[in-house]
Amino acid sequence: MIGEQTHAQHLKLGKLDLGVSARWLESRVRHSARRGALSPRESALAERIKLLKKEAGSHSPSAPTLAKMIPELRLRVDACFLSNPYATDLFLEYLQREVIRTGRLRKLLEFYPSQNRVIAGKLSGAVGVPPEYLFVGNGAVEIIQAILHRFTGEKILVNLPTFSPYHEFARRETQVVFNVLSREDDFWFDPEVYLERVRREKPDTIVLINPNNPDGGYIPYATLIRLLEELRHVPNVILDESFIHFACEGDDFAYRSLSGEIDRFPNLMVIKSMSKDFGVAGIRAGYAVMAPDRVQDLLNNGFLWNSSGLAEYFFDLYSRPDFLMEYERKRVHYIRHSRRFFKALSMMPGLYTYPTSANFILIELRNDMTAEDLVCRLLVRRGIYTRTCDDKKGLEPTKFIRVASRCRSENRFVIRAFRDLLR
Amino acid sequence: MIGEQTHAQHLKLGKLDLGVSARWLESRVRHSARRGALSPRESALAERIKLLKKEAGSHSPSAPTLAKMIPELRLRVDACFLSNPYATDLFLEYLQREVIRTGRLRKLLEFYPSQNRVIAGKLSGAVGVPPEYLFVGNGAVEIIQAILHRFTGEKILVNLPTFSPYHEFARRETQVVFNVLSREDDFWFDPEVYLERVRREKPDTIVLINPNNPDGGYIPYATLIRLLEELRHVPNVILDESFIHFACEGDDFAYRSLSGEIDRFPNLMVIKSMSKDFGVAGIRAGYAVMAPDRVQDLLNNGFLWNSSGLAEYFFDLYSRPDFLMEYERKRVHYIRHSRRFFKALSMMPGLYTYPTSANFILIELRNDMTAEDLVCRLLVRRGIYTRTCDDKKGLEPTKFIRVASRCRSENRFVIRAFRDLLR
Repeated sequence: MIGEQTHAQHLKLGKLDLGVSARWLESRVRHSARRGALSPRESALAERIKLLKKEAGSHSPSAPTLAKMIPELRLRVDACFLSNPYATDLFLEYLQREVIRTGRLRKLLEFYPSQNRVIAGKLSGAVGVPPEYLFVGNGAVEIIQAILHRFTGEKILVNLPTFSPYHEFARRETQVVFNVLSREDDFWFDPEVYLERVRREKPDTIVLINPNNPDGGYIPYATLIRLLEELRHVPNVILDESFIHFACEGDDFAYRSLSGEIDRFPNLMVIKSMSKDFGVAGIRAGYAVMAPDRVQDLLNNGFLWNSSGLAEYFFDLYSRPDFLMEYERKRVHYIRHSRRFFKALSMMPGLYTYPTSANFILIELRNDMTAEDLVCRLLVRRGIYTRTCDDKKGLEPTKFIRVASRCRSENRFVIRAFRDLLR
Repeated sequence: MIGEQTHAQHLKLGKLDLGVSARWLESRVRHSARRGALSPRESALAERIKLLKKEAGSHSPSAPTLAKMIPELRLRVDACFLSNPYATDLFLEYLQREVIRTGRLRKLLEFYPSQNRVIAGKLSGAVGVPPEYLFVGNGAVEIIQAILHRFTGEKILVNLPTFSPYHEFARRETQVVFNVLSREDDFWFDPEVYLERVRREKPDTIVLINPNNPDGGYIPYATLIRLLEELRHVPNVILDESFIHFACEGDDFAYRSLSGEIDRFPNLMVIKSMSKDFGVAGIRAGYAVMAPDRVQDLLNNGFLWNSSGLAEYFFDLYSRPDFLMEYERKRVHYIRHSRRFFKALSMMPGLYTYPTSANFILIELRNDMTAEDLVCRLLVRRGIYTRTCDDKKGLEPTKFIRVASRCRSENRFVIRAFRDLLR
C-alpha cells in the first residue's frame, strides 16, 4: 500500500528530497520562521517570486518552474497544485508494474496512440454513456478551447471568480459577460439571481464550474437539474465537473455527476479533467460528455490523435474495475484528511475561510498582511507554495489566497507554518 | 551502443518477441510462404484485416490495434509505421537513464508541464529561430488543424497524393482544390505547372509536403526558394517538413530546412512532426515556425498546456547538443541502410518503385496482384505490416502500397518475404 511515506519518498521538488518527516523539516527552519520583517536575502527572493508570478499571467508558475528559476528556494510543499497525491501514487504503482517493468513503455512512446473514437470506446463503460457521447481531450483545457471556438457564438456568461480559460479562450468575436458571485454571501451561487441574469443577457453559452474554482463553492445536484430545466433555451450549457470527485452531498462520500443527463438536456456539455482527482496533470487527459452530433462536429475536422500513449494507458486503467476500486479508497482517504485540514485552517486567527467542496480552500486575510506577503513568506521561510488570487477577476486584490490539500504530513506542515506566521 | 540487437530485444508486437533473428523467423514460416492461394484460415484472417482497414477510414489501424483486434496475427515487422527505430532506441536510453532510474518520472506525470511559450524558449536554439517564431503542438497534426481552422480562408490548394488531414481537417467553409501529380512523371512536382495552377485557382492557402507523403518526392531547396519568391501574394504557404531529416541534397547527408526563411517569406509556415525522425509518435510532439503575429494569434485563445510532461522532456533533449550528436549518427545510419533497402525493392520483378527522399517507398504493382492481396499476404504469411494506398486520393486504387524502412534485420526480412511472394 502506498501512503504518505511513499509519496514523501517520491516527491522531489527543487533541491529538497522529501524523504524526511515534516517534523524534521519544521525544526530546520523554525529558528527563522517567526512572523516579522523579511531579511534582505528573503526580500530579494520575494521580489524574484513576484516577478515570476507577474510573467506567468493569469496562471501561477508551476512548482518545477519555480524551483528551476529560483534554485535558492527550498520547495517543500506544493499547495498551489490542485491534485490528489495518493492517486498519483496509485497511477505510478500501476505504471511501474504494468508498463515499465514489462518493457511495454516502448510501445507507448514509439507508436501512434489510438484515435479519439477508439479511446472514447474504452471510456464508455466507466463514464456510463455510449462512446458517441464522448469527446476525449488533451487535458480539459483543450476541450474548453474546442467548445468556445466551435460552438460558442456572440455571448458567453461566466461566473466570477472562475477558471480563467473560460474568458481568456473566448474568440475575439465573442462578448464575455460576468455574473459576479458576492463575497458577502460566501460566493454562494444563487440560482434565482442567475436565471434573472440569463434572461437579461441572453447569452448563447453559459459556464458553471461545480465545485467552482477558486472558491470551492458547490451547487447541489437537485438545484442544477432545476436550473437546467429553466435553461433549455440556452444553446450551450458548459458544466465543468473537474473537481466533482471531491464533492459529497451526503455522508457516504458519494458524488453526483450530471454526465448521464445529456439525453434529457441536449444543450448540456459536461467537461471533466483527470488532472485533479487522479493527480496526473503531466499526461494531459480529459473528456467531455455531449450530444453525439457535437462530438461528430468536432471530430469531422480534427482531434484525431490528440491523446498520447500514456494518456491512453491512463484511460485504459480508468476503465478497469480493479484500478477504480483502489482509486476509490484513495479518494475517500484524501477527502477525509482534506476536511480536517480545511477545518484547522478555518480556526486560524486573522483568516476567513470560504466553504469548500473541492480539494482546495479560498482564504481571505482579515489582518494587516497582503496575500502576496503571506505567499512570499510561506514560500521563502517554509518552502510552502500557495497561490495569491490577485490576478483573479472578481476577487478583491491583495487579500485572497488559495491553498490546496496535499498529503497528510504536508498538510500538517502547512498548518504549523500558518500558525507560526500568523502568531 | 544501441543497434539492431537492442531494438529487436525491445520490440514486442502482437505475440512475438523479436529477440530472435530474422533468419530464424523466416525459417519458421518458409514452408507456407510460397505465393499461391490462401488457405481458408488465411483467407478468413485476410477478410478481418480488410474490415479493420475499412473501419479506420483514411488512416491505417496501428500495429498495436491490429495485434489487439486480431490476436491470431503474428506481427513481426511494422513497415506501415514511418519512423526511425534507432532514434526511438536513443530516446528510450536517455529516458531510462535520466527519468526512470532517477525517479524524475513522477514529476513529469504529476505536475503541469510548462506552457507553450516556455517550451518554445527551450526549442529556440535547436531550431535556430527566436522563441516568438515557434508554435509548439501536440503532434504536427494539431498544428495542421490550428492553421486550417484559424488562418485558412475560402480556398486551399493541396497536391495529390498527400497526407489526408490537409484536406480532411479543412473547415466546411473552405473549398479544397487539388493539384494532381502525375504517375507518368513519377509524381514529380513541376514548379511551372504548379505556379500556373495557383494563378488560375487563386487559393488563400497552399500546402507543400517535402518530402511528400506517400510518394517520397522531393522539391530541392533552390526550387522552393524560387517558388516562394513567386508566391508572395498567397496569404498562407504551409510547408510540411516532417520527413526532411531523411532527405539529403548532397552526398554528405545534410538536409536543408526552410525554417530560417520566415523573415524573408512572412506568409510561410513550416510544420515539423517529431514522430518520424525521432521515432516518438506516442508522445505527440511537433512544432511550427511562423511569423510572430501568427503564433501570438494562436496563443491568444488557447494552446496553453498542449504538451505533456514527456513531450516537454523530449523537447529538453532536442535542445541538447549531446543528444543531437548521438541522434545525428542514428539518422545517417538509418538513411544508409534505408537506401539499400529501397534499392533492393526496386529490383523486384513485377514492382515499380517511385523515387523517394523519405524513409518509405511507394510501390506500384505491375503484375496480376492487387495491393490489398499483397498486403494481406505479407501480413498473414510473414507478419509484415505494409500499407495499401487504396484510400489515398490521387493514386489509382488496387495497385499501390507504401513500405517503410525499419531496422536493418527487419528490412532484410521484408526483402526476403517480397522475393518469395513475388517469385
